[in-house]
Amino acid sequence: MAEIQRHYQQRINQYLSQVIDQLPAQDTKLKAAMGHGLLLGGKRARPFLVYATAHMLNVPLDHVDPVAAAIECVHAYSLIHDDLPAMDDDELRRGQPTCHVAFDEATAVLAGDALQTLAFELLSRADSPLTAAIQIRLIQSLSRASGYLGMCGGQGMDLAATDQPVTLERLEQIHTAKTGALLRCAVEMAAIVGQLPQQQTELLLQFASDIGLAFQVQDDILDVTSDTETLGKPQGSDQAANKSTYPALLGLSGARQKADSLLQSALHALQTLPYNSAQLEAFARYIVSRDH
Amino acid sequence: MAEIQRHYQQRINQYLSQVIDQLPAQDTKLKAAMGHGLLLGGKRARPFLVYATAHMLNVPLDHVDPVAAAIECVHAYSLIHDDLPAMDDDELRRGQPTCHVAFDEATAVLAGDALQTLAFELLSRADSPLTAAIQIRLIQSLSRASGYLGMCGGQGMDLAATDQPVTLERLEQIHTAKTGALLRCAVEMAAIVGQLPQQQTELLLQFASDIGLAFQVQDDILDVTSDTETLGKPQGSDQAANKSTYPALLGLSGARQKADSLLQSALHALQTLPYNSAQLEAFARYIVSRDH
Repeated sequence: MAEIQRHYQQRINQYLSQVIDQLPAQDTKLKAAMGHGLLLGGKRARPFLVYATAHMLNVPLDHVDPVAAAIECVHAYSLIHDDLPAMDDDELRRGQPTCHVAFDEATAVLAGDALQTLAFELLSRADSPLTAAIQIRLIQSLSRASGYLGMCGGQGMDLAATDQPVTLERLEQIHTAKTGALLRCAVEMAAIVGQLPQQQTELLLQFASDIGLAFQVQDDILDVTSDTETLGKPQGSDQAANKSTYPALLGLSGARQKADSLLQSALHALQTLPYNSAQLEAFARYIVSRDH
Repeated sequence: MAEIQRHYQQRINQYLSQVIDQLPAQDTKLKAAMGHGLLLGGKRARPFLVYATAHMLNVPLDHVDPVAAAIECVHAYSLIHDDLPAMDDDELRRGQPTCHVAFDEATAVLAGDALQTLAFELLSRADSPLTAAIQIRLIQSLSRASGYLGMCGGQGMDLAATDQPVTLERLEQIHTAKTGALLRCAVEMAAIVGQLPQQQTELLLQFASDIGLAFQVQDDILDVTSDTETLGKPQGSDQAANKSTYPALLGLSGARQKADSLLQSALHALQTLPYNSAQLEAFARYIVSRDH
């Protein structure tokens, strides 16, 4: 798993570096801020899901490089904006100063905005080997997953839930939108490129929904049990921000059971598919066993 | 002109209202903030250019409703973000409190983000009467015009130029990107839907570039000569923010000459086209004679 993960990480990092390098130098500060937000590293979970799903479906990886890059642009923009003083006010991300700390707030707002636009530019490029019909379906998927109905709406619901008691059902709705939608989208976009039939796509989306939620449950667990150095961000920040979490609602062992039952459901969905899903399976296991 | 303008304003306002109304109520605050930014009124210059160009090319207007709406979503998101305390720190827009004043900063950041996403969702809708090939070209046009190479990059260059002496050439580069690109895009997208040949599209883009710059020159002039009530925003804010403007670089009469020479160039480009361009011509004249 570690080796495949590194392989896909290197692939997406190289592709994203090229994308940023190719921007003209008309505004060096904004360009640097976009690169800061996009190239600082991170797990690259969304590109991994794109590549692993494409690999499983025998789609050439260079056909999904722009897809993996686009979804990472959306993820990176959301982190830049989430870290702003008016939002989560985080100064540290992946052990590095956040974008508004390294540059300034105005530049961080703009860098996030331009990275979102870049995502849709990447998916619509004229020199794509994909047909226009497939490109449009990719853009439908990414815009739904990242807008009001997905990531942005989830972040809005999350903000509204801060300092308020929320039910387990609402917490799940928030995370399904805030992080789940984009992880589902990673798998869905690879399935669109691979022209997977609807029924099999549904199974893949079930897998993605399960690991999306498991990812968040594990994030909440790590915020309680890990330390700042391992996490690359302040430990205990959920509690400090008075956020509802799975450990707070279910207890630590209840949260661990929840993560495990989601893993089992995800693996079951994969086993029903007539493909070699070893990479996706390894990823699912990694999600609930990772320590940062 | 006033009548046609009102007609297109009503058309786009109604369409945009429906788009916002149709969003589910999962996050009422974010939905309200998106509506606040999008439905507060304004000149609707970009939708006007879309509709007037489509009308000239005999394109049914309902084929370009999503195009006009998408470009207005991008414009509205940019205003919400530009008004933020970390950017221009404006509390008043069109005589109303700006988004972060009416709601809060975090919600304003998110509302802007979600409106940008909505633009690309509108252009990629599955129930569109347009072919996927045309939809993709529209998304190429809008993403180029609004991202690092266009509006966002222009805003970045504008921020970098604050409190600094800039040449007329740099000022023109900034405005071409910051406001010009999106006005060009409005005309270009209507031409794409109308499948206008390349040579005629070039003439239309020349027209749009000229009136885009003229629009900005007139904005700078009004900031000096108008009053707060007529403008709907504080008069003299450019000077207060120490921004380079055309009146500052050319003098007031030099700026007026510049606006007029851009108008003549725009009209010349239109006259070369074998279409009835009366609406676009009226718009160009309005741009340099408006008082707010």
